[in-house]
Amino acid sequence: MNVGPGAGDPAGPADSTTEMNEWELIERLTRGLPTNAAVVVGAGDDCAVLDAGAADRWLLFKTDAVVGGVHFTEESPPEKVGHKALGRCLSDVAAMGGTPSAALVTIGLPAGFDPAWVEGVYAGLNALARRHGVAVVGGETTASPGSQWISVALVGFVPRGRAVLRSGAQPGDAIFVTGELGGSLAGRHLDFEPRLAEARWLVEHFAIHAMIDLSDGLASDLRHLMRASGVGAELLKSAIPVSRAAKERARRGDVAKPALAAALTDGEDFELLFTVASRDAVALVDAWKRQFPNLRLTCIGKIVEGHTLTLRDRHGAQVLDARGYVHFEAAAEE
Amino acid sequence: MNVGPGAGDPAGPADSTTEMNEWELIERLTRGLPTNAAVVVGAGDDCAVLDAGAADRWLLFKTDAVVGGVHFTEESPPEKVGHKALGRCLSDVAAMGGTPSAALVTIGLPAGFDPAWVEGVYAGLNALARRHGVAVVGGETTASPGSQWISVALVGFVPRGRAVLRSGAQPGDAIFVTGELGGSLAGRHLDFEPRLAEARWLVEHFAIHAMIDLSDGLASDLRHLMRASGVGAELLKSAIPVSRAAKERARRGDVAKPALAAALTDGEDFELLFTVASRDAVALVDAWKRQFPNLRLTCIGKIVEGHTLTLRDRHGAQVLDARGYVHFEAAAEE
Repeated sequence: MNVGPGAGDPAGPADSTTEMNEWELIERLTRGLPTNAAVVVGAGDDCAVLDAGAADRWLLFKTDAVVGGVHFTEESPPEKVGHKALGRCLSDVAAMGGTPSAALVTIGLPAGFDPAWVEGVYAGLNALARRHGVAVVGGETTASPGSQWISVALVGFVPRGRAVLRSGAQPGDAIFVTGELGGSLAGRHLDFEPRLAEARWLVEHFAIHAMIDLSDGLASDLRHLMRASGVGAELLKSAIPVSRAAKERARRGDVAKPALAAALTDGEDFELLFTVASRDAVALVDAWKRQFPNLRLTCIGKIVEGHTLTLRDRHGAQVLDARGYVHFEAAAEE
Repeated sequence: MNVGPGAGDPAGPADSTTEMNEWELIERLTRGLPTNAAVVVGAGDDCAVLDAGAADRWLLFKTDAVVGGVHFTEESPPEKVGHKALGRCLSDVAAMGGTPSAALVTIGLPAGFDPAWVEGVYAGLNALARRHGVAVVGGETTASPGSQWISVALVGFVPRGRAVLRSGAQPGDAIFVTGELGGSLAGRHLDFEPRLAEARWLVEHFAIHAMIDLSDGLASDLRHLMRASGVGAELLKSAIPVSRAAKERARRGDVAKPALAAALTDGEDFELLFTVASRDAVALVDAWKRQFPNLRLTCIGKIVEGHTLTLRDRHGAQVLDARGYVHFEAAAEE
């Protein structure tokens, strides 16, 4: 659940039992937040966007938290927990077409914590930061009864006037997604690589209308983009790039949901979902293949008028509800 | 305990049982943090300072968290909890001589939380934000087994080249403190007003050598400033401005420690501690009285060579240890 920018929480692996109350709460909380002249984009996108007085750029500002028992477990290697904590924020900066610059790290620790765990978290976080040129400029650890948690705050930059928002999708746009979706809990949620280079390349070479990173799951995140843009969307069932992990888990019976359902709803894929004018779609696919031959890019459908998300197969189109869940059994795999 | 910028945690009211291990951990963690060309001041001051490409200003960047059972209790009104969560960050921006601009709010909530509590938190936080022109540009709530917590991330600005650091104190400087100290747990820790206007006035009118906000307690925070500046300090026992709350609590036997010990060690005063050249001290006191007639400003001692913090009374000088605690019984009030 989300008040404003960024990936909704509880994220993929977590389940929420009070979903409607939470959404109502968000609605109330995001009404009338204080604002000022520096705010370009406030609550409601992957990052907030601020005019920080620079002639050539805007500031991106984002926080994200991971919580023990929700986003990671006691078995999760601390290095991967630190990687994930920063990676989630980096993925949000990617979704704006931006470049991350500096991070602050806050860690809540129960009594009797293991210092080696904290060091492991920093090791994983620092390694990812170095790979992307991000400075870690401090933070704190604080006592926290209950489970441990890590909150990362990030600032970054985007060329002035060039932030890619969720709100720019237009009817007729082609919808693209990077990578493969679903089954992230099998491992990917802890070691995904944020799509920073890919996103910057996209915005430098094509008119990307709208973009979001996939944290809540394809159906939910596409809904966020639809809501922000005031449009509907139609997905082509056979085009959804279902991950091997999702297929394996479904085949082995690890999870009750079919692999396609996993791809639509699992969350924490941390891939990019974006839209471009349909006339740009073929050129984009060709250029992408040359630039990123090892990362799949798939056109999964199109933006339409209205507010509805539908899933089309050879038998027709079915409406997906807000979470992609409720009517899903009827749309189970053929 | 603190990795880098800002008030050390666990803050005043909380007690730490593994203090030495925590400090050792900090030492390890702050060695070799990733950095980049945008970093002006990294880990270790009240805020990080970044060059965000603006010709006239630097960016201040800070996070701070409050945790249920540590920084507030179930009895704390949620409006005051929200006030405190943002106020702590604002106090750190004040300590740099800066102006806050935008905040992101992350709230961790256990299952079955009361939505009205969250709304109360936002109400208190938003009210303080509005008074200081701060935009709240989003954030998130996340599931959190255990107690609730609020992590606030803040960006602000300071005129380029004009950030007041902890590291500028020089032997011979006069040490000043605003307000009165100790006994914050009686109420002040939840409704203090961050000294933003006072700090800006100070840096606009006087050459402030070093500044820090009092979150860990006078003795601890002065130690932070001493360590950053490579100096010692001598406090005049009779000059310490002990709060009425600290005196009342000591008199009633609410706490075992004498009022002066409370003023030195309680923490969460959120007053400003700063140093100026001794030749500026009298002019500063005179100008302050005209500008802020209702807020006490006290010269409590001087910066000296060395690394030692001493407390002087008419019988001589006693050394205070790193926390101001260990030898304190011997220095109990006369």
